[in-house]
Amino acid sequence: MAIKTNPGNYFEDFQLGQEIVHAVPRTVTAGDVALYIGLTGSRFALHSSDAFAQAVGYGKAPVDDILVFHIAFGRTVADISLNAVANLGYAQCKFGAPVHPGDTLNARSTVIGLKENSNREAGIVYVRSVGRNQRDEIVLDYVRWVMVRKRDQAKPAPEGHVPDLAGTVAPLDFYIPPGLQMEHYDRTLAGAPHAWEDYAKGERIDHVDGMTLEESDHMTATRLYQNNAKVHFNQHAESKGRFGRRLIYGGHIISLARALSFNGLANAFRVLAINGGRHANPCFAGDTIYAWSEVLDVIALPGRADLGALRLRTIATKDQPCADFPGPDAAGKYPPDVVLDLDYAVLLPRRTA
Amino acid sequence: MAIKTNPGNYFEDFQLGQEIVHAVPRTVTAGDVALYIGLTGSRFALHSSDAFAQAVGYGKAPVDDILVFHIAFGRTVADISLNAVANLGYAQCKFGAPVHPGDTLNARSTVIGLKENSNREAGIVYVRSVGRNQRDEIVLDYVRWVMVRKRDQAKPAPEGHVPDLAGTVAPLDFYIPPGLQMEHYDRTLAGAPHAWEDYAKGERIDHVDGMTLEESDHMTATRLYQNNAKVHFNQHAESKGRFGRRLIYGGHIISLARALSFNGLANAFRVLAINGGRHANPCFAGDTIYAWSEVLDVIALPGRADLGALRLRTIATKDQPCADFPGPDAAGKYPPDVVLDLDYAVLLPRRTA
Amino acid sequence: MAIKTNPGNYFEDFQLGQEIVHAVPRTVTAGDVALYIGLTGSRFALHSSDAFAQAVGYGKAPVDDILVFHIAFGRTVADISLNAVANLGYAQCKFGAPVHPGDTLNARSTVIGLKENSNREAGIVYVRSVGRNQRDEIVLDYVRWVMVRKRDQAKPAPEGHVPDLAGTVAPLDFYIPPGLQMEHYDRTLAGAPHAWEDYAKGERIDHVDGMTLEESDHMTATRLYQNNAKVHFNQHAESKGRFGRRLIYGGHIISLARALSFNGLANAFRVLAINGGRHANPCFAGDTIYAWSEVLDVIALPGRADLGALRLRTIATKDQPCADFPGPDAAGKYPPDVVLDLDYAVLLPRRTA
Repeated sequence: MAIKTNPGNYFEDFQLGQEIVHAVPRTVTAGDVALYIGLTGSRFALHSSDAFAQAVGYGKAPVDDILVFHIAFGRTVADISLNAVANLGYAQCKFGAPVHPGDTLNARSTVIGLKENSNREAGIVYVRSVGRNQRDEIVLDYVRWVMVRKRDQAKPAPEGHVPDLAGTVAPLDFYIPPGLQMEHYDRTLAGAPHAWEDYAKGERIDHVDGMTLEESDHMTATRLYQNNAKVHFNQHAESKGRFGRRLIYGGHIISLARALSFNGLANAFRVLAINGGRHANPCFAGDTIYAWSEVLDVIALPGRADLGALRLRTIATKDQPCADFPGPDAAGKYPPDVVLDLDYAVLLPRRTA
Repeated sequence: MAIKTNPGNYFEDFQLGQEIVHAVPRTVTAGDVALYIGLTGSRFALHSSDAFAQAVGYGKAPVDDILVFHIAFGRTVADISLNAVANLGYAQCKFGAPVHPGDTLNARSTVIGLKENSNREAGIVYVRSVGRNQRDEIVLDYVRWVMVRKRDQAKPAPEGHVPDLAGTVAPLDFYIPPGLQMEHYDRTLAGAPHAWEDYAKGERIDHVDGMTLEESDHMTATRLYQNNAKVHFNQHAESKGRFGRRLIYGGHIISLARALSFNGLANAFRVLAINGGRHANPCFAGDTIYAWSEVLDVIALPGRADLGALRLRTIATKDQPCADFPGPDAAGKYPPDVVLDLDYAVLLPRRTA
Repeated sequence: MAIKTNPGNYFEDFQLGQEIVHAVPRTVTAGDVALYIGLTGSRFALHSSDAFAQAVGYGKAPVDDILVFHIAFGRTVADISLNAVANLGYAQCKFGAPVHPGDTLNARSTVIGLKENSNREAGIVYVRSVGRNQRDEIVLDYVRWVMVRKRDQAKPAPEGHVPDLAGTVAPLDFYIPPGLQMEHYDRTLAGAPHAWEDYAKGERIDHVDGMTLEESDHMTATRLYQNNAKVHFNQHAESKGRFGRRLIYGGHIISLARALSFNGLANAFRVLAINGGRHANPCFAGDTIYAWSEVLDVIALPGRADLGALRLRTIATKDQPCADFPGPDAAGKYPPDVVLDLDYAVLLPRRTA
C-alpha cells in the first residue's frame, strides 16, 4: 500500500535534464479575472474591457499577464517548491500568446541546473517552466531557481551545474501579439496621455498609492492560483516557524506593484518579459505596499512605428512611501522595507501610432 | 519630461460646463456578479437566476443595480474625487437600460456646479455623471457633489454656481425595462408573498439581520469597482489620518443596506432611482451594519396594472439593531450610530399582475 | 398591513408531509467556481479544467460537488433553519446530474420527521431536500435534521415521527454520469498515480496540509451560497451569544476538508454520496483546519471495469495536525479539537481503465 500523500520532491530527487509534467490543468475564466481585479485593484484598460481590447485588435479582453504568470507558476509548486526554503530568483521570462477566458493552461518544467549547498543540507534547483494553452501555444516561458531541502543529507548529490542565464530578454525575443491596431488605442480611455516617446531612460516614477495586505486577501489570491506552498496558509504551523506568521506569496507583491504602477504607467498595456526579480524581504499581513519605477531603457522595436518597449525596474516597499525612491545601498544590500526588485519589459503605444 | 503620475483634479482645475471622459471602460462579467453576491450576500432572485429573469422578460439575469452604480462611480473617482475631502451627496440618480454580463460600461461627467468654501481651502464640485454601455445606451445618470481641496488657496476661484437639483426623480422619468411579463413573476420563488399593494405609506420595516464589516471585504469590493480613492486601502497612511484607520467606501454600506432589505422587500426587484443619499457617519472594519426602511410613498405607474413603485427611505446603522427605527433627531442631527440615510425608488410586481 | 420580515419557521410551524418550495433560484456561474477555488484552494482537475473534463466525457468542467451542495443547502436556510439551535446531521445524500456553469438550481423540501424535545422548548425537524436544475433533473437529494426552537412552548406539538434513515447510500443508488470515457483520464494530470485498486480498506491517509480560517473567507463563502443563517455574520449580536463570536458555517469546514483531501485522494474526482456527517465542535476565525481520511470500504461497481468507489471517513481537526489520526474516544466522544466526522463515497478511475 503506497503512501498516498505527495511529499514533494527533495533536492536529491531532481536530475539534470529531467522533464516534469505538472498536474491540474486550469481553465482561466471571467471569474478568475474578476477576483484578480478584486484582490489587486488592477485598472489596465486592456484587461478590463472587451470593447477596448477589440478596438486594438484582440478578440476580447486578454487575461492580465501577471495572472497568467501566477496560474502557470501555481501548477509547478507541488513538484518544484513544496520543500523549498526560498524562492531565489527568476530569469528569461517571456510572455507568449495572449490568454483569454476559456483557455486552459498547463505547465511543464525541465531541470536545467542543480547545485548543492556547501553545508549539504539543501541545494539550488534551476527549472525552466513552460506554460501552454489548449492549442499547445506557449503562453509563458521562464526560468526560476529555488533552494530545496535534502531528504537525506548523507546522500551524495549529483554533479553541480549552474545554467548560463541571460540578464535580459532580448527585444527580438519579445512576443508581439499579431494584428494589433494601435491607431485605435485610445490613451484617454486607458487613463493617461503618455505614450512610449514620453518616457526617458533614467526617469523615475513614484506610483504614490499604497495597498495594505490582509491575510484573507493574500490567501485567497494564492489559493486562486492553486499554489499550495504551505507557508502561506497555516498560522498554526507558522506560529512556530521562522517568522511566527504566514508568509505572503511573493507573486502577490508583484501583482500589487504592477497594479500600483498604473498610476504613471497606464499605457504599459502588456508585460513582455521579466528579466529578473528578487523578493528582497518577506511580507506579512498588515504591511502596506508602495512602489516606484525607474525606466532602465527605452527600446525601439524593429519595424514598428506603432509600438515601443520600456525596460523598467519596479521596486516595492512596505510601510515606506516611495517619493524618495528607496532601494538597495551602494553595496547592493536591501534595507528591510524594500520587498521587491523587479526588472521587466512592457509594451506601450507610440505617439505616432 | 512630464510628471507621469495622476495628481487628480483640484477645485480650481474644474470649470463650469466642463466635459470629462473617464478612463478604463469595464466589461461586467459573471465573475463580478459572483463576487458581489459573495461580498454582500444579496439574494434578489432577478439577479440570482437566469431562469427567473427569463420568465419575467429579461434575456438573462441583469446585473444588480447597485453593482452597476458602483462600477459607473468607480470610473469617475480618478478625475472627480481623488482630492475630495468628503462625498457630500447624490441626487437625480436614474437607472436606465439593464446591464448584463458581457456589457462594457464607460462614464462621462459634466461639471454642473462649483462653489468655493468661505475659507477658500476647498470648494464643492457638482457633477452629472452618465454611464453608458457599448451600444451607447444610458445605464445610469446621476448627480453627485463632493468637497474638493484647492491646490493653491491664493488662486481666485471661478464664479460660484449651485445647480437646481430635484428632490426626487419624477415617476414619469423612471425607466421601466420594456417587455416585462409580470404574469410570470413568481413571488414564492422571489422569497416573499408581498406585492406592491401590500405596502402602505408610512410603513416601517426592520430588516432584522446584521452584517459585520471586515477590512478584506470592503477593500475587495472597492477594488472590484476600480474605485481608487486612497482612504480605503492604505492603513499606513490612514494610521496618521483623520480616523486613524481605513475609511469604508460609503457605497459598500449602500450595498449592504440593499442586501439586508431583502428581508422585507424581496419583491423590490429593481432600483428605479436614488433621490438622495447621505453618509451620515463613517464606517470602519468591525462595525456591524443593520438597516430599516420606511415607505415614503406608494406610487402607481401610469398605464401599468402590472407594476408599481415605492419610494423608500432606508436607514443603516452600525452596532445598533433597528427594531426601534433609529434616525436623525428633531433637529435633523444624526446620532453617531446612524451611517446612511438613503431616499430611493424601487419597482415591484402588483398583486393584480 | 402584514409583517414583511420573514421570521422563519418555528418547530410548531412544520407539519409531517409538508412540501416547501424554497425561494431564490440560483444560476451557478464561472464566477462562483473561481470564488470557490479562491476560498478553498481546491485542486481537483475535473473541476479545474474544461480540457480535462472534456477528455473524460463531460462537455466542460462540472461544478465541484460540494459547491453544489452548498448552493442547494443555501436555498433551504430561510425556511428550515433560520430558528435552528443546531444542525444535527445529514443522511442519504446522493449527488445526481452534474452541474455546469449556466445551470440554474432550485430546491424543495419535504418534512419527513418531527420530534419535540422533552423540555418542550424545541424539536427536531427532519427534511428531505431535493435540488434540481432548470431541466428538472435532480442534482442533489439529501436528508438533514435540525433542532428548531418553538415560538410558543405551551403549544402542543404534533405527534412525533422519526424517519427510518439508511446508514449508507447503497452503491446501486450511486449516480454515475453517463458517457464517461475513463480511458482518457490522465492520472498524472490529475495529480497522483493512485487508482481505485491502490486503496485498501482500513487505510489511513494524513492529508498533511493545514488551512487557517479568516472571518472574511468564511463569511464570503457563506454569503456566496446565499445561506443567511444569522450566526455566521453578525459579530455585534454574537459577541453576546453562546460563543462570543461568529460561528463558521459547518459546510465551509466540509469544503476545506475535501480540498485538503486532494493530497492523498487526487483521483477521487466525484463525490457520489454523503452517508452521514457530524459537526463535532464549532469552528471560529483563527482556527487552522487539518484533515485525515480512513478508507471504510472499497466498493466495486457492478458492470464497471473502469470505475470504482471508496467509502471514506474524513475527520477534520482544528489546530491539531493529523499524523496521529485523532478521532472520537472509545465511548464515541469527540475531543474538542475534532470538528468534522464525515462518512461519504467517492468515485475513482480503475487502474485497468
